[in-house]
Amino acid sequence: MQVDGRLYRTVWSVPAKGVVRVIDQRHLPWNFVLQDLATVEETAVAIREMHVRGAGCIGATAGYGMWLAARESSGSMKRLEQLAALLTATRPTARNLSWAVERQLNVLKDLSPDQWDHAALTESKAIADEDASWCERIGEHGLPLLSGIHEKKSRQAPVQVLTHCNAGWLAFTDWGSATAPIYAAHRAGIPIHVWVDETRPRNQGSRLTAWELQNEGVPHTVIADNAGGHLMQHGKVDIVITGSDRTTCTGDVANKIGTYLKALAAHDNDIPFYVALPSSTIDWECRDGVRGIPIEERGGSEVSTVEGLTHEGVVQGVNLVNPGSPTSNYAFDVTPSRLVTGLITERGICDATAEAIAILFPPTARR
Amino acid sequence: MQVDGRLYRTVWSVPAKGVVRVIDQRHLPWNFVLQDLATVEETAVAIREMHVRGAGCIGATAGYGMWLAARESSGSMKRLEQLAALLTATRPTARNLSWAVERQLNVLKDLSPDQWDHAALTESKAIADEDASWCERIGEHGLPLLSGIHEKKSRQAPVQVLTHCNAGWLAFTDWGSATAPIYAAHRAGIPIHVWVDETRPRNQGSRLTAWELQNEGVPHTVIADNAGGHLMQHGKVDIVITGSDRTTCTGDVANKIGTYLKALAAHDNDIPFYVALPSSTIDWECRDGVRGIPIEERGGSEVSTVEGLTHEGVVQGVNLVNPGSPTSNYAFDVTPSRLVTGLITERGICDATAEAIAILFPPTARR
Repeated sequence: MQVDGRLYRTVWSVPAKGVVRVIDQRHLPWNFVLQDLATVEETAVAIREMHVRGAGCIGATAGYGMWLAARESSGSMKRLEQLAALLTATRPTARNLSWAVERQLNVLKDLSPDQWDHAALTESKAIADEDASWCERIGEHGLPLLSGIHEKKSRQAPVQVLTHCNAGWLAFTDWGSATAPIYAAHRAGIPIHVWVDETRPRNQGSRLTAWELQNEGVPHTVIADNAGGHLMQHGKVDIVITGSDRTTCTGDVANKIGTYLKALAAHDNDIPFYVALPSSTIDWECRDGVRGIPIEERGGSEVSTVEGLTHEGVVQGVNLVNPGSPTSNYAFDVTPSRLVTGLITERGICDATAEAIAILFPPTARR
Repeated sequence: MQVDGRLYRTVWSVPAKGVVRVIDQRHLPWNFVLQDLATVEETAVAIREMHVRGAGCIGATAGYGMWLAARESSGSMKRLEQLAALLTATRPTARNLSWAVERQLNVLKDLSPDQWDHAALTESKAIADEDASWCERIGEHGLPLLSGIHEKKSRQAPVQVLTHCNAGWLAFTDWGSATAPIYAAHRAGIPIHVWVDETRPRNQGSRLTAWELQNEGVPHTVIADNAGGHLMQHGKVDIVITGSDRTTCTGDVANKIGTYLKALAAHDNDIPFYVALPSSTIDWECRDGVRGIPIEERGGSEVSTVEGLTHEGVVQGVNLVNPGSPTSNYAFDVTPSRLVTGLITERGICDATAEAIAILFPPTARR
């Protein structure tokens, strides 16, 4: 997607330098910074410390990280598996991470070590390309939802979408999941307005989603996470679309903390609540999201400290919380399938049920 | 309640100086600043710009403001009513504000102007004293809810309370509404732990409620507003208690934006959701909260800009939002009575229904 009119992806390889290049999202929206990752350790830090974040983006980055791992392993499968475990351990909730790492291991385990470098690079590009193309297809499948709402409204009235966190192109390699139908509709000339949840504590909405939408020219308004219920009560939201960090094969959705609250409000106000996800996000083993999905608990300083821009244009961290008061920081919550109107996937839209998911994704279609 | 071990109220008069003295809450938790209000205009600014905030506190401040108005009116009832209107117009949602102003007008309208100063001062003290005593009684009536939960838990396990915004003593003249049962239980030796919602955009939870609880020695943890649903799903919350800025006579509750989302989560997880309020908060004319209660829309800069403490100990404002992205800022939402387990009032606990409220507050008990 566009940054100041130029096309970018979130992660790619520079084989001539032996590095993986990523957009270091910690500096957005104030500075657009690229970072080169030269080692698996640097890649692990970049994922853990959220230089890169978002289901597809950390999957793709981990995929590229496995290319670096293949180069660092000196032909030792044991070493390769250690480095794979290092990558997998960086974030516990996101499904795409372990999915990409395992996919690389599956490719490499049958090859001789002299083929690893080339094969891992090829596979990492395939993972990234697939992520981009799956997200683009999510956009195509989601577009009729938005055009359908538009047809029922007066011509100039924008379709009002609410989204939480950043499930935009920054969270994948391109297009995004929740944003893909929005970008598709915007390009199709359908008037859209997006309510962007700030998404405390890390403010991915006000910092990343707002930045993305502005770069693509999509009208939007940033709101406090607290505001969505009121907007839905008063008819100001036509549809909610979020992403997912892990989806059970029964349709439960782990996504950024607070998603569950928006799903409850949508349900209470008869507003459709859709979750957009490439199937790489689906955990085929897990059937009970609330009990089965590990929820990452991050440092409390992410709640107490926030970065912003001073009047003088300096990025400054400040402490928001009463000094001495402890903080707690669960990063995700689980929205039970009963609150999900449908899943928008690269293979089409389906109900958030085990049966519907299994029909759309028979075992042969699972990767 | 206590500030560094010394007892304070949020607002009081200094007749010798002809001023109203308030705690200027904009400086908390970093600095404890008192402000003298010498004119009605200064009082209106203090309410509008939230030097003072919270249902009871702005009611009591407006009551004292009417004392200043009585002194400024030079015996003109027309001028007195103009100044009353100036105070009432400062915040549209809170019921206590117009309630206190009307109460003063009702007292003064039958008196000769030479009696206004003394009568208005007496009435303003009565309003403040009544607020404090009503809140203390809310604590007494709410205490059995918390002791009852404690009796069902293991002895050391604290009763887990979640609250939103600041319905503490800073929001009243003393004790607070939602915090009154907490303070009562804490003093009764019942182990309590409070999950304090940060309460974006103005962070009354992380700045004020956390500060209050720390000063009173009540264990607590500050969380992002997004976290409550997850905590409730996982049995980490025993009861939710919030305040109210306006309660319809049918039991709908207007409170700080985001309260509705917590009520939905409590309902979805069979967790009791109580609202604590003195009856001065009840709007006896309004029967439909979602349609009938005016919701204040404040400046978007409250969403985009936040104050915090730098490493150097300086209070600094920073901009959190992607530059150029618009923001929207509704200050309250309405929780329908169907989601409210009960109302904790100065006259006892009742269901959130017109019938139960009318039984607890027959017309003769309404002031």
